[in-house]
Amino acid sequence: MYSVTVRDHIMIAHSFRGEVFGPAQKLHGATFVVDVEFRSKELDENGIVIDIGRASDAVRVILAGLNYRNLDEDPSFTGRNTTTEVLARAIFDRLAAVRSRGGLGAGASALESIRVTLHESHLASASFEGRL
Amino acid sequence: MYSVTVRDHIMIAHSFRGEVFGPAQKLHGATFVVDVEFRSKELDENGIVIDIGRASDAVRVILAGLNYRNLDEDPSFTGRNTTTEVLARAIFDRLAAVRSRGGLGAGASALESIRVTLHESHLASASFEGRL
Amino acid sequence: MYSVTVRDHIMIAHSFRGEVFGPAQKLHGATFVVDVEFRSKELDENGIVIDIGRASDAVRVILAGLNYRNLDEDPSFTGRNTTTEVLARAIFDRLAAVRSRGGLGAGASALESIRVTLHESHLASASFEGRL
Amino acid sequence: MYSVTVRDHIMIAHSFRGEVFGPAQKLHGATFVVDVEFRSKELDENGIVIDIGRASDAVRVILAGLNYRNLDEDPSFTGRNTTTEVLARAIFDRLAAVRSRGGLGAGASALESIRVTLHESHLASASFEGRL
Amino acid sequence: MYSVTVRDHIMIAHSFRGEVFGPAQKLHGATFVVDVEFRSKELDENGIVIDIGRASDAVRVILAGLNYRNLDEDPSFTGRNTTTEVLARAIFDRLAAVRSRGGLGAGASALESIRVTLHESHLASASFEGRL
Amino acid sequence: MYSVTVRDHIMIAHSFRGEVFGPAQKLHGATFVVDVEFRSKELDENGIVIDIGRASDAVRVILAGLNYRNLDEDPSFTGRNTTTEVLARAIFDRLAAVRSRGGLGAGASALESIRVTLHESHLASASFEGRL
Repeated sequence: MYSVTVRDHIMIAHSFRGEVFGPAQKLHGATFVVDVEFRSKELDENGIVIDIGRASDAVRVILAGLNYRNLDEDPSFTGRNTTTEVLARAIFDRLAAVRSRGGLGAGASALESIRVTLHESHLASASFEGRL
Repeated sequence: MYSVTVRDHIMIAHSFRGEVFGPAQKLHGATFVVDVEFRSKELDENGIVIDIGRASDAVRVILAGLNYRNLDEDPSFTGRNTTTEVLARAIFDRLAAVRSRGGLGAGASALESIRVTLHESHLASASFEGRL
Repeated sequence: MYSVTVRDHIMIAHSFRGEVFGPAQKLHGATFVVDVEFRSKELDENGIVIDIGRASDAVRVILAGLNYRNLDEDPSFTGRNTTTEVLARAIFDRLAAVRSRGGLGAGASALESIRVTLHESHLASASFEGRL
Repeated sequence: MYSVTVRDHIMIAHSFRGEVFGPAQKLHGATFVVDVEFRSKELDENGIVIDIGRASDAVRVILAGLNYRNLDEDPSFTGRNTTTEVLARAIFDRLAAVRSRGGLGAGASALESIRVTLHESHLASASFEGRL
Repeated sequence: MYSVTVRDHIMIAHSFRGEVFGPAQKLHGATFVVDVEFRSKELDENGIVIDIGRASDAVRVILAGLNYRNLDEDPSFTGRNTTTEVLARAIFDRLAAVRSRGGLGAGASALESIRVTLHESHLASASFEGRL
Repeated sequence: MYSVTVRDHIMIAHSFRGEVFGPAQKLHGATFVVDVEFRSKELDENGIVIDIGRASDAVRVILAGLNYRNLDEDPSFTGRNTTTEVLARAIFDRLAAVRSRGGLGAGASALESIRVTLHESHLASASFEGRL
């Protein structure tokens, strides 16, 4: 199995509902350093998993929809906590949708899975990995 | 598959038996930076894999049982080398036992697997991953 | 010159005033990984720059006053942007005040300077260094 | 599953053929920080996945065959792009061959798989993982 | 003293003249992860050392003049080795020239010094720091 | 001012005397990732601060005198705590002595200072910087 991983980041505000979150129930924020890993069993004729320029652009566009925002006011997360896990899944879903529309290029049809990892500090991260 | 990872560390002394270890047969020591990854197919109603506060506390308690010690004198490792691999497995086993007793919280019953990685330097690490 | 550095972090929300900040004028947030470096020309009789336990506790208490908050509502920053630079200076000032009150221990009287660095992502950081 | 990972690096020049590579079609270069992960279901009698000294030496010898070179002139890659993915696979193949010849030591016969990851910058990496 | 640091990178080919360089006398290459630290005694009215957007853009433009090239063919380095040290100095000189032309914005007139650090691997880096 | 930094590491056992050290009064150990920064105002005719090969070899030889040991039994530290600060100074002193004997090569005579930093975990480090 081959894979290619690219890194980007977002800086957001949010708060959580639920006693389990303790002080994080208050409005606070986070930098999420985002690693997106694209996996494929085969390389294309250029010797690559995916056109990394297009993939990076797609990640950047998706992250721009979250960046510099208060996620408590984002309608796409109404009624849900925007935990690191939930955000990893949301970014995965949006990337999968871009791929379905052909937005990752022709070679992306061979992708088997994508793993999205969000590092919220030097001590903690969360990820979602799904098949395509 | 979702996952959440938390980081902590220990500083221990030990020595190894076996020619394969060369100079590490002498009493020396290591800082192990420990990453524990908790994996689950589903999120709970709060949108999390596990109560990260409880999980971090459980890791801290387990590591406190190893930290600032000469592992050559720890009865739980008598007759065995406390290699990075062996320690990764021991931490996994202790975490699995804590979970069985309910010590990781109710949500932890949905965990599928745990991966424990110990970084012994900027050049080397070892891990153990097991199903629950 | 000797130095000792400890790391901790905070997760805050804030917004900036001024066109120079572009989209960061909106409410957003950040994880700041905080490195505090304590500098001294001499070591004490224990062979240390400072009691690292007390120093880390002091940093933790100061950061707890900022952590999990919307800094736009913190009276100590009214009328000012809580940029990474401004926060580095604020943490320095608070540490210097703790030291003046003896809160870093007896050995801290030999400290020459402190440098506070805040990493806001894998791409950017800011710091303030001042004499004591 | 147990694993052990060792890190090394190479510094090479190369160029790519194909419009997808944009400016990287020109002769340029890269530092590849190489992580090799050895995986096994069981530990040997010493408590290790593999003799890490022999494994590191094997990695070093294989990387020495690529290091400080213009890969455009390396006959083993004639007609192919030496992308990060292709290089990860090549290093895997060479390690697998060394193991088949017994070059990783007796314990290496229990290895299940190897994963080779090449970090080309702080923003991008590629890997190949294969069974043995 | 305040400082702000931004990170970017280049991927270049080159070779060195001089026996001291051993195998690096052959054409090879490197990824240089570039940290540029801007230092100032005072913050401007926005609470910043420098407009980080303009500073990052200036760094990007300067690095674009080096990126994806064989530096052996760059006339600006004719007769000189493009060592990590020499490149750090060259990037500093180009940034200082941009600032003199006003290209870093009005606030940049208060800058005291700049430090440019190039990381060539996980094991080695070089830097040049100069007053403005 | 130019600088070049190289990284290496040691794995040692030791214990401390003094209540300030708490549980670290017991025999334990550490991995110290060691960064040595060599500083000079000028580059030599090759465009370098120092022959990095010779410098790295000198660091390796000095570290070999500490590596895989119980520092409590090292006569050169009798009666002193081998804190991170003390070890940073000891490595500096030994490097300065090697340089005085010509062991860093002819170009090393232009060195102004050396800074030795020991990272004991992902959370703490200490350093000593001295003029030559």
